[in-house]
Amino acid sequence: MTFSRPSGRAADQLRPVSIQRGFTRHAEGSVLVCFGETRVLCTASVENRVPAFLRGKGEGWVTAEYGMLPRSTHTRSDREAARGKQGGRTLEIQRLIGRSLRACVDRGALGERTITLDCDVLQADGGTRTAAITGAYVALADAVNGLKARREIKRDPIFGAIAAVSVGIYKGVPVLDLDYAEDSDCDTDMNVVMNDGGGFIEVQGTAEGHAFRREEMDALLGLAQAGIDQLVQAQRDALAD
Amino acid sequence: MTFSRPSGRAADQLRPVSIQRGFTRHAEGSVLVCFGETRVLCTASVENRVPAFLRGKGEGWVTAEYGMLPRSTHTRSDREAARGKQGGRTLEIQRLIGRSLRACVDRGALGERTITLDCDVLQADGGTRTAAITGAYVALADAVNGLKARREIKRDPIFGAIAAVSVGIYKGVPVLDLDYAEDSDCDTDMNVVMNDGGGFIEVQGTAEGHAFRREEMDALLGLAQAGIDQLVQAQRDALAD
Amino acid sequence: MTFSRPSGRAADQLRPVSIQRGFTRHAEGSVLVCFGETRVLCTASVENRVPAFLRGKGEGWVTAEYGMLPRSTHTRSDREAARGKQGGRTLEIQRLIGRSLRACVDRGALGERTITLDCDVLQADGGTRTAAITGAYVALADAVNGLKARREIKRDPIFGAIAAVSVGIYKGVPVLDLDYAEDSDCDTDMNVVMNDGGGFIEVQGTAEGHAFRREEMDALLGLAQAGIDQLVQAQRDALAD
Amino acid sequence: MTFSRPSGRAADQLRPVSIQRGFTRHAEGSVLVCFGETRVLCTASVENRVPAFLRGKGEGWVTAEYGMLPRSTHTRSDREAARGKQGGRTLEIQRLIGRSLRACVDRGALGERTITLDCDVLQADGGTRTAAITGAYVALADAVNGLKARREIKRDPIFGAIAAVSVGIYKGVPVLDLDYAEDSDCDTDMNVVMNDGGGFIEVQGTAEGHAFRREEMDALLGLAQAGIDQLVQAQRDALAD
Amino acid sequence: MTFSRPSGRAADQLRPVSIQRGFTRHAEGSVLVCFGETRVLCTASVENRVPAFLRGKGEGWVTAEYGMLPRSTHTRSDREAARGKQGGRTLEIQRLIGRSLRACVDRGALGERTITLDCDVLQADGGTRTAAITGAYVALADAVNGLKARREIKRDPIFGAIAAVSVGIYKGVPVLDLDYAEDSDCDTDMNVVMNDGGGFIEVQGTAEGHAFRREEMDALLGLAQAGIDQLVQAQRDALAD
Amino acid sequence: MTFSRPSGRAADQLRPVSIQRGFTRHAEGSVLVCFGETRVLCTASVENRVPAFLRGKGEGWVTAEYGMLPRSTHTRSDREAARGKQGGRTLEIQRLIGRSLRACVDRGALGERTITLDCDVLQADGGTRTAAITGAYVALADAVNGLKARREIKRDPIFGAIAAVSVGIYKGVPVLDLDYAEDSDCDTDMNVVMNDGGGFIEVQGTAEGHAFRREEMDALLGLAQAGIDQLVQAQRDALAD
Repeated sequence: MTFSRPSGRAADQLRPVSIQRGFTRHAEGSVLVCFGETRVLCTASVENRVPAFLRGKGEGWVTAEYGMLPRSTHTRSDREAARGKQGGRTLEIQRLIGRSLRACVDRGALGERTITLDCDVLQADGGTRTAAITGAYVALADAVNGLKARREIKRDPIFGAIAAVSVGIYKGVPVLDLDYAEDSDCDTDMNVVMNDGGGFIEVQGTAEGHAFRREEMDALLGLAQAGIDQLVQAQRDALAD
Repeated sequence: MTFSRPSGRAADQLRPVSIQRGFTRHAEGSVLVCFGETRVLCTASVENRVPAFLRGKGEGWVTAEYGMLPRSTHTRSDREAARGKQGGRTLEIQRLIGRSLRACVDRGALGERTITLDCDVLQADGGTRTAAITGAYVALADAVNGLKARREIKRDPIFGAIAAVSVGIYKGVPVLDLDYAEDSDCDTDMNVVMNDGGGFIEVQGTAEGHAFRREEMDALLGLAQAGIDQLVQAQRDALAD
Repeated sequence: MTFSRPSGRAADQLRPVSIQRGFTRHAEGSVLVCFGETRVLCTASVENRVPAFLRGKGEGWVTAEYGMLPRSTHTRSDREAARGKQGGRTLEIQRLIGRSLRACVDRGALGERTITLDCDVLQADGGTRTAAITGAYVALADAVNGLKARREIKRDPIFGAIAAVSVGIYKGVPVLDLDYAEDSDCDTDMNVVMNDGGGFIEVQGTAEGHAFRREEMDALLGLAQAGIDQLVQAQRDALAD
Repeated sequence: MTFSRPSGRAADQLRPVSIQRGFTRHAEGSVLVCFGETRVLCTASVENRVPAFLRGKGEGWVTAEYGMLPRSTHTRSDREAARGKQGGRTLEIQRLIGRSLRACVDRGALGERTITLDCDVLQADGGTRTAAITGAYVALADAVNGLKARREIKRDPIFGAIAAVSVGIYKGVPVLDLDYAEDSDCDTDMNVVMNDGGGFIEVQGTAEGHAFRREEMDALLGLAQAGIDQLVQAQRDALAD
Repeated sequence: MTFSRPSGRAADQLRPVSIQRGFTRHAEGSVLVCFGETRVLCTASVENRVPAFLRGKGEGWVTAEYGMLPRSTHTRSDREAARGKQGGRTLEIQRLIGRSLRACVDRGALGERTITLDCDVLQADGGTRTAAITGAYVALADAVNGLKARREIKRDPIFGAIAAVSVGIYKGVPVLDLDYAEDSDCDTDMNVVMNDGGGFIEVQGTAEGHAFRREEMDALLGLAQAGIDQLVQAQRDALAD
Repeated sequence: MTFSRPSGRAADQLRPVSIQRGFTRHAEGSVLVCFGETRVLCTASVENRVPAFLRGKGEGWVTAEYGMLPRSTHTRSDREAARGKQGGRTLEIQRLIGRSLRACVDRGALGERTITLDCDVLQADGGTRTAAITGAYVALADAVNGLKARREIKRDPIFGAIAAVSVGIYKGVPVLDLDYAEDSDCDTDMNVVMNDGGGFIEVQGTAEGHAFRREEMDALLGLAQAGIDQLVQAQRDALAD
């Protein structure tokens, strides 16, 4: 029997990626990012204030919030606002998105402003957090470009680009960009966030079925690097439109 | 000075209405409804259980939840999940949506099922609750049609159609379907929910600037009736596609 | 069979209304209002501060909170303080009371003060929100009269009077001031808030059994107008004591 | 200088006590108890279920909840339902009321029922918890008498009577039944709960200004015993009406 | 049959007491106190700020928080942080600890500082609150001695010493310092907090099985006084090390 | 300038590790684990029930909760129970501990039991989560050994061992087992969980200062592997006592 992915993709093949800017009109940056059937709306909101711990320091802040619409998933999930709290998974993901994006921002150049990246999943099919990071970068860039265009900031606070992708071991084979069918049936799952210079920002790997060996890890990191190169190109193309 | 609306519409003119079915893929009904720049994603989810107070009674339930994405609005609003509770306005709106839709459902014919209508505002420009009711009806119809197609129910539990529109007095003139520019500057605001037989389901009028007279109320109700006729037609057209 | 109300009242007859000022001693205004067996304690508390969004604007604020004692009802309801949150119905009612009373207050004349109207239901028999609005107006007037007597304010911030009553269709007949027996068995229920000049402040109608027709709505509004005239007179009599 | 209490009472004199049964109509027991200007509404609600830890054991449960209306006090206190939790003082008091009343109930004779004593302070002038216990006993007795009258229980589950009073050292002198003026200015405050056989159920003494000596404690306990004799008599008189 | 305690102790005998200072390294005072198998870690933290109600008054504050590790008890208790609130018992105990310790502090001499006493039960075997008070006093003294040594305060804000012990009636006999085996099987339980001058700070007695008589109370208070003398000596010895 | 760590350790040197079993008496497993000055109390509690999603499936569950005593840290942190919720960091860590330990448990062999690992930090000096995982494994083993000794289970549900360590890049040099001084000043921080067969269970790396290169990652993983070998040996030694 030959190995095949449920989607018929090659092991090192991303799903079709689309990055649509200006999806909604009020936010300073608004991006609908799709990794295949996963669709996340990422908005960037600029506010002229910073959290208490930064007040008066001349630095800005970049933070993120993440949510899934109740029926973005196969079966309906509870609405976190109705349950009265965000779950552990949500907090973990939004902390990850915020840390990742801060890795490309010179907060001194941003000045005493907060940029909030809201990543809301309209439809989920695996990889929502990596799509969110990849799309949020573009929304962030749009918001910062707006500040520059209005001459509210002098220096560009963004250096480089940030993108993310998942990799994992599916039926014994390292594969790129897991969709839901693979994600729910894989042994190991790793989310990798990198910058456009090939540096790692975050690596979060979890052995779900069996512990993974060092050479498996090496293969996964290689797949991720190649995938992120393509995602960074997709970001550039979107921003060039 | 002649009266004119910010949008240039006639006093009795709706904004362009669009109702797009199948907007997302997992829900039993999924509708993106637009009243001009107001866009609400309405999904209908069917679950084979009912709330505790209905267990064993052979009846179903229809309920609704409402939310606004944090940056659906001009300035970013707090995420209710992060604040740890839904605000009074949210609860009020979702109770209204649920009551309105239950008014066209024979809960005995539905059987012991719950249909949850999630109405999430992607972009707000006034009238989100009336757009939500109008779109949720179509999502509900799609979900029920699916149950019928799969022969899970015998009798059609939906009778008639439900739609909603806002009316108000803007600069002294009764107008139909307020957008945000009008809504934030009007004296009286009324949300009207009706069925396709011309019966009133809900009427919620609030004098914001000055108390309104009986003849003003009469004019507003007339505008609403005419607007709802058009919305019901738009629902029919969407369902006929 | 002739129509008859459970209480034996005529269709356009209010329950006995009593408005007792000075019911408790600490509040600046303290009124026990009874609509038949419905009894609501309404207190007005004056504080020399305003919510954050009004600070420094030279304007005051009027707000309301509503609660039911756990055993004001036929069967005991959970205590909202113990459950850890106010329910949707409570929030809806207290927002209605606050909006209604603000409709007769010149907030500039009030100055940077907050008046909080606490409406606590000691005994419920239908119509608690309309009794609350009617009683809270008198408590508000007492509090404002105290400010005037102590010369803390110069201009009278209250213009006109505000009262409220419910109307509904019971066994096909439009009736005034529903009690619990009627309320739990009626087809349509409408709460109407008006000022003493005959202007509408709030109209909230809900079809519970069947959608109501335009001529039914007209009849209900007529009943409400007549009832409110009597309630405004009862407020005047109470304030004249 | 002679010692005098703000109210002019003798050191061993209670405030006027009144116990009014049937104050509201829905509860199985409903008592308005007044210790001078302190007024507490105590209702007893009977429900045919017990908490999870007692299910199937053939025993009943007696519990209490306590609340203060926001403007029962000199200055308005936050509404606990709005703050989203009951404070430590509230929890402490309602636990005390529940424990105290359970001390006179044979829970086997009560059967699998819960009696909830809701003690809501309409007006506070010191001693709300002792008034609540004293009044709740009468509401409990009314509820139990109703069960007996309807032959729902065979044996009387109540043995003896429970009443409570505060004592304290005011300006160096041990006094009975502190009112607010004394309470906020006293050195030592003790709440004593006893049964009609002269046994102690609860003693909670707190030195607020200075530590109290053993002989002071003896004097306070003596005052409490005499006061409780009178309160038990007032309960008997009320129940005999 | 002769009376005997489960532990074999005499009726007036404390469990072995140990007070270990410097148990952890970051806190200004850190004490592990053991009453037999009950072990409580008490830390004192000094912060240069006071609660809002004391700001600008030149006074300090002393407060306490109490917690039990989930498996400090025979069977695992829920973690209060996970449940999302502190229970009534916890609030009651931490309020007691705070009040008790404030009784030996001159808050003016402390200056605008807050000392927080965190009492966390590592292992429970009855008497955790009395051990906590006894240990927290030593942690407080260490924290204050640090302030004096660094010359941050001039006058010593601590006067006297505070210790606490439980007493109860076990199988009809008044006994000192109940352990868990006795506590869960006793008729009456009293926690007594005293200062080193023999004055009472707090007395909290509860009849669990039967109401206690005046002479029983007298016996219990006598036992407590003798026990507290020994505890104060143990505190002195610990502080002298 | 030569590189040196604040503690004087070599780059590949662990802090002194101690694993003390039986630290408290009630839990089925109770371990105080110290990585230098970091001290975490890990208890394992066995309960004969499983979460709802596993009921009736014949499988057990292993879960973890994590907390820091308020003054385990340099400056006092808020008590999460008092704030009313666990923070994002806490949830993230306890999810990590639970997932890690489940990786060595055959849940079918465990039967319908839940083992809860409570990891409470008594003193923090960096690496609390890795110490917690390393200690929790020993507590889990003790609890399971107890089940085996009492013949409650037949097959051993534990396979292999799990330990964890942090690695990071401090002043440009990859180092093992960061203490607080290093952690708060390092560029990259990675937590690595492995089993005793050299397989990776979790890898969580975060670039704090600058993105890390692939060869840096390789060096860090090598350090972690060597450190975990020593920790697994320390676990074996402790269990052999």
